Amino acid sequence: MSPRSAIDGSEGAVIDEALARKKAQRERFGPLEYVRLTDAFRGLPRGTARFGEDVVPGYPPIGRVLNLENGLRHHFEAPFHVEEKVDGYNVRIFRHQGELLALSRGGFICPFTTDRLPDLMAPAVFDAEPDLIVCAEVAGPGNPYLEGSPPGIEDDVVLFVFDLMRFGRPGFVPAAERYALYERHRLPAVPAHGRFHPDRPAALREVLRELDARGVEGVVLKEDSARQKRAKYVTPASVIQDISAMADGLMELPPEYFTNRLLRLALILEESPELDRDGLRERLGAALLDPLLTAVRGYHDSHKVAHPFRCRFRGRENAERFIEHLGRAPRSAIHARGFELEREEDGYWVLTFERIFPRTTGLLANFLSGGQVYD
Amino acid sequence: MSPRSAIDGSEGAVIDEALARKKAQRERFGPLEYVRLTDAFRGLPRGTARFGEDVVPGYPPIGRVLNLENGLRHHFEAPFHVEEKVDGYNVRIFRHQGELLALSRGGFICPFTTDRLPDLMAPAVFDAEPDLIVCAEVAGPGNPYLEGSPPGIEDDVVLFVFDLMRFGRPGFVPAAERYALYERHRLPAVPAHGRFHPDRPAALREVLRELDARGVEGVVLKEDSARQKRAKYVTPASVIQDISAMADGLMELPPEYFTNRLLRLALILEESPELDRDGLRERLGAALLDPLLTAVRGYHDSHKVAHPFRCRFRGRENAERFIEHLGRAPRSAIHARGFELEREEDGYWVLTFERIFPRTTGLLANFLSGGQVYD
Repeated sequence: MSPRSAIDGSEGAVIDEALARKKAQRERFGPLEYVRLTDAFRGLPRGTARFGEDVVPGYPPIGRVLNLENGLRHHFEAPFHVEEKVDGYNVRIFRHQGELLALSRGGFICPFTTDRLPDLMAPAVFDAEPDLIVCAEVAGPGNPYLEGSPPGIEDDVVLFVFDLMRFGRPGFVPAAERYALYERHRLPAVPAHGRFHPDRPAALREVLRELDARGVEGVVLKEDSARQKRAKYVTPASVIQDISAMADGLMELPPEYFTNRLLRLALILEESPELDRDGLRERLGAALLDPLLTAVRGYHDSHKVAHPFRCRFRGRENAERFIEHLGRAPRSAIHARGFELEREEDGYWVLTFERIFPRTTGLLANFLSGGQVYD
Repeated sequence: MSPRSAIDGSEGAVIDEALARKKAQRERFGPLEYVRLTDAFRGLPRGTARFGEDVVPGYPPIGRVLNLENGLRHHFEAPFHVEEKVDGYNVRIFRHQGELLALSRGGFICPFTTDRLPDLMAPAVFDAEPDLIVCAEVAGPGNPYLEGSPPGIEDDVVLFVFDLMRFGRPGFVPAAERYALYERHRLPAVPAHGRFHPDRPAALREVLRELDARGVEGVVLKEDSARQKRAKYVTPASVIQDISAMADGLMELPPEYFTNRLLRLALILEESPELDRDGLRERLGAALLDPLLTAVRGYHDSHKVAHPFRCRFRGRENAERFIEHLGRAPRSAIHARGFELEREEDGYWVLTFERIFPRTTGLLANFLSGGQVYD
């Protein structure tokens, strides 16, 4: 097979240059060697990865608009498709030398997602379309990375496909072709809500109201044009969920995590007077206070503040690679520890661990013992 | 008059050393020259100031406890007096060469407080006790430094005396003598709630419940002993008020302003199950959301996020010194501007200005115009 990189085959050379400039790093997944861009470099997004001569482009960041009406007017020149935004982690799935692999946003092969691919999607699509790169979100309470998961997923994880790319072609597969491929290959896609016009925000607001009521994170708007302009916009529900999921990690996260979300909520309320402001106030207060209070109470029993994780693997080796991955990735700041791996009756390996919040734990140790603070 | 510095007269020498080590700075207030410690230095608190040979000690920081029961047990060896903590700014008032002066916490002569002293307290106490240093909080909606003010002060500012020091003697005037001096000279003191025992937190909790209901910030506990151990503890009401006063300045302040207060609230709730948790959730949500929403709405009219200030001066010169002071002090980060000074019929000079929140203003300008954010 011929190399499946950029149209002019130059991407491989750019990655060589990135390696020389320390903007890329060599990685290994079992016997497989690859290179990933640790930073955006010469037009290639961070997380772009090279396997031999095949280059998987990074998934480009999508800008958020915080005022829907002006955001639509400013950024869209043509009608756009509206698709649900799912609160999970981003992966790119593709076939390389007969093997299905899933890359994380940062360009690591994700041992968990790669392990679980047979449960998440039918591989047949890659027989028909071997040059396809499936961009998807993995979400659910059984995911090993994120605190919180979208409502309606009872356990384990679910895959939500939201974009398709092809090796050697820039950009995304156009919407019409993409929707056709979803259908033909029964890909588990994010719900799409149709095509909207940038001059008519009211119709989109109607959709958002319904999504908010269902606790959906928000929407991604994808212009139906050659330039493929995109933007995202979130619901109040997503702000509350994000805050609630991490309020007991308040001291561990960059403060912008909270301040940005509070500002988002105020901006949404300002342009959506129909929203239940009283209800949102109370939900916001509860989202901040209840997890902190639970953490304080929990500290008395366990002397730590931590979130438990539980995720299932098909293969023991992948679970072990995953543990190693957590230690290696820049995410090592997540302070995962207490790994336990057990085989279940159904043959799956269940990995449990916890994510410790060391700063919060230290503060509570001091405060609860009566320590004095000079602040 | 003999120098009124430390018992052994060594404080002046320490300040000379601090000047040499750039831990002190020479200042000027009209014709008056003085030196202030910009950092704590050799046992003298930051804000210690020297006028000729007189040394006014800085007001030492008081540690906060976040768990009342353990805090009492840990830090107090003897009964303590409980006094209300007032949400204002800290001043030290004294007489120097026949002139009454007020120092800010940082050791600057505060032109506003100094100007208004004749309105705030009777100066006769300094005739009877010339070596007295009166430590007090200035609070009220007419103060030029703080956003919020305690409930019950309708306008202008009020002085609340909470400690007395004497030139040339270390530490504070003991409680019994202090209360006697308050009474003899009718000093406007913070309310005191009596003497409590560290083994009986329940009695103190009863007081705190009543203070919380009145919106009082909290208490300062002062051990009735030679070592004068102190600690402070706040009410839920104060947390809500602090957050509400500055929620629209969320992006301007160190993030710890908010995270510390949220954690305080959770810790108070944890040890005070009788508190109305539902009510606090909603008040917390409102405290964060309402000012931000007001700021967003206000931006449409004024294209800025700002708080207005209005304060009264007896003398024009002091108002001008105050404007200069705001520019000079490390607080220049407060971005005060739009100063207007007008004489009222009652002879007072009214200074109005606003404090701009430049980061929030910039963010809203971008977000409301529909700008995209890559966060």
